[in-house]
Amino acid sequence: MNVSRPAVHPLEAPPLRDGAENAPRVRMKDLQGMPGTPGGLALRLCQFFFALISLCVMLSTSDFPTVTAFCKKNINKASCSCCTSYLVAALGLQSLWSFSLAAVDIYALLVRRHLRNPRVVSFFTIGDGITSTLTFAAACASAGITVLIGNDLDKCAVNHCARFESATAMAFICWFVASPSFLLNYWSLAVSANY
Amino acid sequence: MNVSRPAVHPLEAPPLRDGAENAPRVRMKDLQGMPGTPGGLALRLCQFFFALISLCVMLSTSDFPTVTAFCKKNINKASCSCCTSYLVAALGLQSLWSFSLAAVDIYALLVRRHLRNPRVVSFFTIGDGITSTLTFAAACASAGITVLIGNDLDKCAVNHCARFESATAMAFICWFVASPSFLLNYWSLAVSANY
Repeated sequence: MNVSRPAVHPLEAPPLRDGAENAPRVRMKDLQGMPGTPGGLALRLCQFFFALISLCVMLSTSDFPTVTAFCKKNINKASCSCCTSYLVAALGLQSLWSFSLAAVDIYALLVRRHLRNPRVVSFFTIGDGITSTLTFAAACASAGITVLIGNDLDKCAVNHCARFESATAMAFICWFVASPSFLLNYWSLAVSANY
Repeated sequence: MNVSRPAVHPLEAPPLRDGAENAPRVRMKDLQGMPGTPGGLALRLCQFFFALISLCVMLSTSDFPTVTAFCKKNINKASCSCCTSYLVAALGLQSLWSFSLAAVDIYALLVRRHLRNPRVVSFFTIGDGITSTLTFAAACASAGITVLIGNDLDKCAVNHCARFESATAMAFICWFVASPSFLLNYWSLAVSANY
C-alpha cells in the first residue's frame, strides 16, 4: 500500500507512524500452502486422500467390525480393538476435516478471495493442530503395536498384519502432509495478529 | 530501536519509510514463555524435570539393560527392547535439550538480554519441534504397548507394568510442557521474520 506523504506542503503535520500501531498495514505475501492458495488446496487433497486410503485399508479387512481379528491370536481383544478403533476414528476425523477445508479452498480460489481473517485463520490453525496431533498419536500407537506383533512373524501371517502396517504408514504420510498446513496457518496467524 | 529523525535540519532528505522493509523496527512484546523470560525458564525446567523423572523411572527398573523383562513373559524381546530404548533415547534427548536451553535462559535473564536474533530463535524452534515430536511419538508408542499388555492383568503383575505406565504418563506431561515452548518460539520467529 503506498501511503501518499506530504512532500509538497511543508507545513502539514508529519504522518504519525512512530509505533507499530501506526505502521502501514502491509498485506503479507501469500505463501503457497496457506489456505486459499493452490498449494494449500494440494496439501488438503493429499491429506484427504492419504487419510481415506488408510481408512479404506482398515475397513477393507473382510471382518472389520471385528477387526480385532488382527490380534485375536496374540492378545486379548479389548485393547487391540480400542487401538484400531482409535486409528479409524482419528483418520475419519482427519479426512472429514481435510475434505471440508479443501472445499473451502476451492471456493476461495474460485471467487479469488484471500482467507486472511484472523478468526478464520485461528479456527483453521486450532483444527489443524488437533487433527494432526490425533493422527500422529494414532499412527505412533499403531506403529508401536505393529512392531510388537509384527516381530512375531508366525502370528503376523494369520492376521491382517500387512494391511495394518500399510494403514499405519499411510497415517504417518497423512500426518506428514498435515503438519505443513498447521505450521503455515500458525505462521500466518502470528503475522496477522502482529500487523 | 529509536531511529533519530531529522527534525532540526529542514533541508535534509526525509527518512525513507515507504514500504514494510523501511518501517520502524519495533520490538515485539516479550510474551511470558518465550526464551529469555522467567516463564520460558519455568517451562524449560518443567520439561527437564518431567523428562528426568520419566527417565529415572525407566532406569530404576532393577534390571534396566534387560528392561525387556517388561515384556519377556508376553512377547519376544527384540521389539519391546526396541520400543523401550526408543522411549529412553527420546526422553534423554529431551532432557538434554531442555537443560541446555534452561541454562541459556538463566544466562539471558542474568545479563538481561533478549533472545530475539532470528537465527537463534529458528534454531530453538527447530530443536523444540524435533525433540517434542520425538517425545510425543515415544509416549504414544509406549501408551499403545502399555494398553496392549496392561489389559492382560496377570501378565502385568509379573512385569514392570506400573513403572512403564508412569514413565509414559510423565513423557506425555513432558510433551505437554514442551509444546508451548515450540509454539511460542515459532510465533516469535514468524513475527520477527515479518518485521
